[in-house]
Amino acid sequence: MKKISSAVIRRLPRYYRTLKEMEREGIERTSSLAMGQRMGLTASQIRQDFNNFGGFGQQGFGYKVTELRGQLASIIGLDAENGYSFVIIGAGNMGRALGRYTRFSREGYRLLGAFDDNPAVIGTEIDGVPVMPMEQLVDFIRQNSIDIAVLTVPASAAQNVADMLADTPIRGIWNFAPVDLVMPPSVVVESIHLTDSLMTLTYRMGQCGEESPESAE
Amino acid sequence: MKKISSAVIRRLPRYYRTLKEMEREGIERTSSLAMGQRMGLTASQIRQDFNNFGGFGQQGFGYKVTELRGQLASIIGLDAENGYSFVIIGAGNMGRALGRYTRFSREGYRLLGAFDDNPAVIGTEIDGVPVMPMEQLVDFIRQNSIDIAVLTVPASAAQNVADMLADTPIRGIWNFAPVDLVMPPSVVVESIHLTDSLMTLTYRMGQCGEESPESAE
Repeated sequence: MKKISSAVIRRLPRYYRTLKEMEREGIERTSSLAMGQRMGLTASQIRQDFNNFGGFGQQGFGYKVTELRGQLASIIGLDAENGYSFVIIGAGNMGRALGRYTRFSREGYRLLGAFDDNPAVIGTEIDGVPVMPMEQLVDFIRQNSIDIAVLTVPASAAQNVADMLADTPIRGIWNFAPVDLVMPPSVVVESIHLTDSLMTLTYRMGQCGEESPESAE
Repeated sequence: MKKISSAVIRRLPRYYRTLKEMEREGIERTSSLAMGQRMGLTASQIRQDFNNFGGFGQQGFGYKVTELRGQLASIIGLDAENGYSFVIIGAGNMGRALGRYTRFSREGYRLLGAFDDNPAVIGTEIDGVPVMPMEQLVDFIRQNSIDIAVLTVPASAAQNVADMLADTPIRGIWNFAPVDLVMPPSVVVESIHLTDSLMTLTYRMGQCGEESPESAE
């Protein structure tokens, strides 16, 4: 498959989200124009994005909402038979909030374990899942073939933990630590840098009046 | 000032973060090359980014870390006299976790109030700040000249709350609801779409082997 730009990749979940919204509203058919109006994109931008994946729908007839949503789910990888398993590393406030975020389980992401090095939280639970000591992390991942590690440890610990993960079957790290992780190419890293995002907001507030588009995240 | 691309704007906090890291490590002088190595960017990319703001440092002598960090803080707007005040709307798990995230207060962001419509959480506290009923939101923002609203309400409520905020002195919305908000241009919206980010990770895991750069967020 030809190389697809990261901007297009980042729009895939937005398309998927928009189509789910339309499904909930009972809309059965849509068009690039109608989707674009909801998303602040032009119809030609959407058609161009979809062409990266061979195109969908039929010229002049638009898209069937449920069918297109299914096609996008398959491209994103949401149709994997057993979904995705994940562990949370760092069972502080943010780790716990993410563990309890019901949208993830709805899309097939299953929290199987949580880890921390703080004796005060080891043995507690997140949504019924036990918080275990860090020493058990690597074995747990191997034994349970965990797909994704959610990293909510302090900045100072993040790279060390990531190095431990490099030796496991983990395929993706969802990193919330304010650090740019260095990982071998076999592990995908996707970061949410909260403070960076808040600072971007602040910068744009200072420029306001000139322009203020919705986040392009 | 000429229009600066959103990719450059999103790198500003990363530069700032990298320089703080260097300060903590006791590094006094740096170069585009050394910064680039930490950040996975080329030296010329960094110089080009900095040229958007008139350039820093002196050809051949590099940058003084603390001075450059200060210049970037000023560009981002972190040197505002009293920092920034914010409220959290939606005092669930995510709202509470964000309210307790100490990095924000360290950078001058002050949580002044939290709001929810759930009687079970109204009257509780987040880091000493009371959770108040939604009916008090608009008056509270006006009376306290709140700068930023952090939106951690369910998707179905997000646009309604945003519409309420449009009539207040709020200048920025940091949106965590999985919705693309529509706001007047006087209010800047920056969104963290958690599920979108997790799906982007999943997509890239499926493509893995071809490439896996650090998140470009």
